[in-house]
Amino acid sequence: MDYKRGFASDNNSGVHPRVLQALEAVNHGHVIGYGDDPVTQELEMEIKRLFGDATAVYPVFNGTGANVIALQSVCRSFHAIICAETAHINVDECGAPQKFTGAKTISIHTPDGKLSPERIVPYLHGFGFEHHSQPKVISITQVTEMGTLYQPDEIKALSDLAHSHGMFLHMDGARIANAAAALNLPFKAFTIDCGVDIVSFGGTKNGLMFGELVLFFNRDHHKYTKYYRKQASQLFSKMRYISAQFLAYLEDEVWLENARHSNKMALLLQEKVKDIPGITITQKVEANGVFVIVPGEIIEPLQKEFFFYPWDENKNEVRWMCSFDTSEQDIDLFVQRIKELKREFNV
Amino acid sequence: MDYKRGFASDNNSGVHPRVLQALEAVNHGHVIGYGDDPVTQELEMEIKRLFGDATAVYPVFNGTGANVIALQSVCRSFHAIICAETAHINVDECGAPQKFTGAKTISIHTPDGKLSPERIVPYLHGFGFEHHSQPKVISITQVTEMGTLYQPDEIKALSDLAHSHGMFLHMDGARIANAAAALNLPFKAFTIDCGVDIVSFGGTKNGLMFGELVLFFNRDHHKYTKYYRKQASQLFSKMRYISAQFLAYLEDEVWLENARHSNKMALLLQEKVKDIPGITITQKVEANGVFVIVPGEIIEPLQKEFFFYPWDENKNEVRWMCSFDTSEQDIDLFVQRIKELKREFNV
Amino acid sequence: MDYKRGFASDNNSGVHPRVLQALEAVNHGHVIGYGDDPVTQELEMEIKRLFGDATAVYPVFNGTGANVIALQSVCRSFHAIICAETAHINVDECGAPQKFTGAKTISIHTPDGKLSPERIVPYLHGFGFEHHSQPKVISITQVTEMGTLYQPDEIKALSDLAHSHGMFLHMDGARIANAAAALNLPFKAFTIDCGVDIVSFGGTKNGLMFGELVLFFNRDHHKYTKYYRKQASQLFSKMRYISAQFLAYLEDEVWLENARHSNKMALLLQEKVKDIPGITITQKVEANGVFVIVPGEIIEPLQKEFFFYPWDENKNEVRWMCSFDTSEQDIDLFVQRIKELKREFNV
Amino acid sequence: MDYKRGFASDNNSGVHPRVLQALEAVNHGHVIGYGDDPVTQELEMEIKRLFGDATAVYPVFNGTGANVIALQSVCRSFHAIICAETAHINVDECGAPQKFTGAKTISIHTPDGKLSPERIVPYLHGFGFEHHSQPKVISITQVTEMGTLYQPDEIKALSDLAHSHGMFLHMDGARIANAAAALNLPFKAFTIDCGVDIVSFGGTKNGLMFGELVLFFNRDHHKYTKYYRKQASQLFSKMRYISAQFLAYLEDEVWLENARHSNKMALLLQEKVKDIPGITITQKVEANGVFVIVPGEIIEPLQKEFFFYPWDENKNEVRWMCSFDTSEQDIDLFVQRIKELKREFNV
Repeated sequence: MDYKRGFASDNNSGVHPRVLQALEAVNHGHVIGYGDDPVTQELEMEIKRLFGDATAVYPVFNGTGANVIALQSVCRSFHAIICAETAHINVDECGAPQKFTGAKTISIHTPDGKLSPERIVPYLHGFGFEHHSQPKVISITQVTEMGTLYQPDEIKALSDLAHSHGMFLHMDGARIANAAAALNLPFKAFTIDCGVDIVSFGGTKNGLMFGELVLFFNRDHHKYTKYYRKQASQLFSKMRYISAQFLAYLEDEVWLENARHSNKMALLLQEKVKDIPGITITQKVEANGVFVIVPGEIIEPLQKEFFFYPWDENKNEVRWMCSFDTSEQDIDLFVQRIKELKREFNV
Repeated sequence: MDYKRGFASDNNSGVHPRVLQALEAVNHGHVIGYGDDPVTQELEMEIKRLFGDATAVYPVFNGTGANVIALQSVCRSFHAIICAETAHINVDECGAPQKFTGAKTISIHTPDGKLSPERIVPYLHGFGFEHHSQPKVISITQVTEMGTLYQPDEIKALSDLAHSHGMFLHMDGARIANAAAALNLPFKAFTIDCGVDIVSFGGTKNGLMFGELVLFFNRDHHKYTKYYRKQASQLFSKMRYISAQFLAYLEDEVWLENARHSNKMALLLQEKVKDIPGITITQKVEANGVFVIVPGEIIEPLQKEFFFYPWDENKNEVRWMCSFDTSEQDIDLFVQRIKELKREFNV
Repeated sequence: MDYKRGFASDNNSGVHPRVLQALEAVNHGHVIGYGDDPVTQELEMEIKRLFGDATAVYPVFNGTGANVIALQSVCRSFHAIICAETAHINVDECGAPQKFTGAKTISIHTPDGKLSPERIVPYLHGFGFEHHSQPKVISITQVTEMGTLYQPDEIKALSDLAHSHGMFLHMDGARIANAAAALNLPFKAFTIDCGVDIVSFGGTKNGLMFGELVLFFNRDHHKYTKYYRKQASQLFSKMRYISAQFLAYLEDEVWLENARHSNKMALLLQEKVKDIPGITITQKVEANGVFVIVPGEIIEPLQKEFFFYPWDENKNEVRWMCSFDTSEQDIDLFVQRIKELKREFNV
Repeated sequence: MDYKRGFASDNNSGVHPRVLQALEAVNHGHVIGYGDDPVTQELEMEIKRLFGDATAVYPVFNGTGANVIALQSVCRSFHAIICAETAHINVDECGAPQKFTGAKTISIHTPDGKLSPERIVPYLHGFGFEHHSQPKVISITQVTEMGTLYQPDEIKALSDLAHSHGMFLHMDGARIANAAAALNLPFKAFTIDCGVDIVSFGGTKNGLMFGELVLFFNRDHHKYTKYYRKQASQLFSKMRYISAQFLAYLEDEVWLENARHSNKMALLLQEKVKDIPGITITQKVEANGVFVIVPGEIIEPLQKEFFFYPWDENKNEVRWMCSFDTSEQDIDLFVQRIKELKREFNV
């Protein structure tokens, strides 16, 4: 069977060959379960090399799991979590953060998926007043769900705001590798160095089979995390099979090669469609996603051949995601088909 | 590096080669995420072949995830879940069932990990009385956490009791393959045919890398399960990598071969230690676990070479689990070391 | 001691004498607890007279309790509840609805505290898509937290919208008596007759000591309410003391007399301040609340003598609530003091 | 109408006249809501006089509310709460403690409703092991649900055990007045002086209309309690009406008079039935409850005239509770009717 590549999501792709090899390489003998194994210990050292010695790492199964455990670690049920209206934790996790933490989400409308102090400040009141949920976390997504990027100084401004109110800054880094590649910076430079307190460090969207990491930079923030991870069903018994993937991904710079490639493909795709009449790019292309308005007639026939998701059906806005395995030929065929359909429908 | 085999848990072992091959075989191209892919569709058909056409299957990451989603699907927060005191859902999931469902667990003391109608009936009262949590689920583990086995008629008696009170029977089948091998029966014969309503169908403890299935036999029981699975962080984006494992496991009877082997190794281990003076077998060896009281002095030195867990430290009772990759030689070396240590400590 | 009347909240006032007499009148002998008493049975009959024979009534302690039990009765944790940004359930209950239901609140910005189909429709998508919390309840407040009123046709439009999407319409009626008095309609005419499914029927803000009622008009909506009420700590043991209050309140039309009076006082207060230079009425005065912008300098000295709450400190907007015991003289003294302070501060 | 006195529960009785008078006495003018009023401040001072200056008091509506707020203040969802199998929090609150805290309840079988270190110690293991819910609170009921009493040294032993494991001792004092009267000790002597950390201080079962207090003796234990109380719907807007009741109850020793009387009535009842053939007292009568086995035939006809609850229907064990308004004549008539029914049924 042949599974055709499309532009639906970076999780529709498979696993990078180096990651698969790493799984085979650890597949022998017995090791203690639940993270007390030599492969996971090696991963912990690698993470400390990348983020600093004080970093604690909690591997989990997936991105929603990473986010809820990050949030549970620092939120009680009377707290509030501030995020963009488009945030994955707000709209794509079926209410998991609310269910796990019991806390309230305050979602803020933004044009580009990015929070800023100006947008947040109006919600920072009522501290100490028991009738109001107490703001405790600002959660940002890097790269955002709109394919846009926070610059380091923007992140710093948000962490300063958070800390000046006794709050935390959480980064949902489902696509953190794409951000690092786009910023051309090490992970550290736009996380801990900018005051981020907790990171959901993704891998599945960039060539892993499964597994994400929750990173904490301060001992006080993860005192109870091991219990919350277990209770949330996110403690993997055969942990070596997550750790081995991340080791290959990090040590061999699979992450960087993959992220650079998918970002490059998105820029290429943008380049090739931006001048086609009737097509409008709606968001800056800063990583591996392209948001466009296209003539409504061509959406369905195009999806049949190259699957992708609608974004705002009222406006015929769609989302095209590039992946580590997207090829230039994929893009050429896709763009060619767009042009053919435009002619066919005379739009 | 060499990871030495021990007797700690059947999840300390690795992945069966056929399962690993299956992962490689599906690793190409793009498929829709979250279960809407051809591999998962094939798995659904295989499950229907094994359990009947009405069966619905929800793949999840792990056993705790499977149990909480099974329970959430049929419990509200004012319900009660009845289980053995030794049940995994009662003592080994850090309170996950309580956290996810909000419901109360009624745990019943048993000598062998097995519930019976006689033990449950005293708790079946107060139906309709709003001051009491309403009993809604009986949850049994097959094979039990004590290595013992429910016979089909025992399961039938429990499902009759449950149904006569408007309740459900859930089976935590983390080691269901070992049960099927030990009973020499198809899965169907001691689940749906005995009135079981929901099964947590395990694989990780018998040669998979990760992944469990929640099986429902009645449409009414899983009306909302897809939402609960997503909200519980148990919906895998790259689902084909769970489905492919189970397909290899089920179609090629990897499950049966593995389970028969680990059961056989446990019987062999029992056979070789049962007559050693000072060693007492404390539970019937019906699957792949051996519970024994051993002289206290030898526990620690023995663990250093072949890792295993204490069960009841007050009694020097320990648990030895055999795995699909346990060899006769492993057992010979283990038993030999026991004898040497007994001599050394003169016990 | 003398407790000076102010304009802070209609819950700063005391208990109407007729209500207090009713408490004394039932204070003898023993009755079964938890609602199975003759006083509560009489209340149930009175409610059926007012709202129709199919109405079920669940007395609870307070308004937050009423709202969470109303919502829990029809929401699961994967649902979403739509309300105005200013709704009590969104901002004044410390996240109680999220905590109790586990569901997500979608709060919508409005200029006057009133929802409309136009504002809600953009959020009604993703039904059946497991990644999104499923919209299940529209919750409106009547009288709104901004002192404004829904007309019956506006309510009907919202219930039609809700029902056409398989959703429910809940009314937080903490000030429902003020609404009935202002609309000059029986309760029924703007609740069940307009398709409202569940009402939190308040009393504490209009002359009761404590106690609210949750009203359901359809048997299917409150199948489990008795369990949720008990589990939420809202089942009163000595229920006769809530029921007796409501009987006096409803049978003797204490409710109407009180609500008419406080509404009239708010209109009078508006009349007396609206032409004072520097004072701007910011919301329509449709019930017992007056929202005004006043010169910032006079707020604090005025509060010292007649307590009231700020509403939006950035704009010097404050809220003045009238109560069943507010007198014309209170208003005269208050307005006189405003004028004096304006002179004093030369504003 | 006349409400006949029975022996069902001490919450079937009404309100002591002095308490009702106190409600009237504060019923004038306006005070700030939610506890920031002079009556509540006076109550706080009175509580400090009784329990010491470090005591913090949180008034709530009812006993279940008091218990859940006490437990939420010191428990996270991965904790476990240890209590007797008969504890109100285990069997009579519809799972409220589990729902509010998310924590697990470990209920221990006892013959008389009383916990002891010996019964608890076997459950105190697995500290720091993330697979197990972490024991955090020992909760005892004083007077127990079986009408029995903890002596101060027994309480001290339990608090020592708790504290030596980093745990807390909570006392559910729904009938704490009956305990103080029976022990002939001030409240302080068997709570804070014995190491109790948190007390649910009841009043409703001893002559109040409604209202309980949660008492904390250490600032660290109630850092977030005000938020949990609000979120749990247990923050009363017109707080003066709880505080005034407690002031009358405590200052005027209404509590002691009432508790002594109901205890005395229970002893009298025991005295009058203990030698009747076929009647067996099953628990020590140490406060206001009498547990007896009676001939099964007389239960139903006797209940029709003097309502009371069955305790264990399998054994014909019933519970008779005396109240502050139980009279000697009530007991004489009750005992006389028992004798008549025994003759009638020839048992």
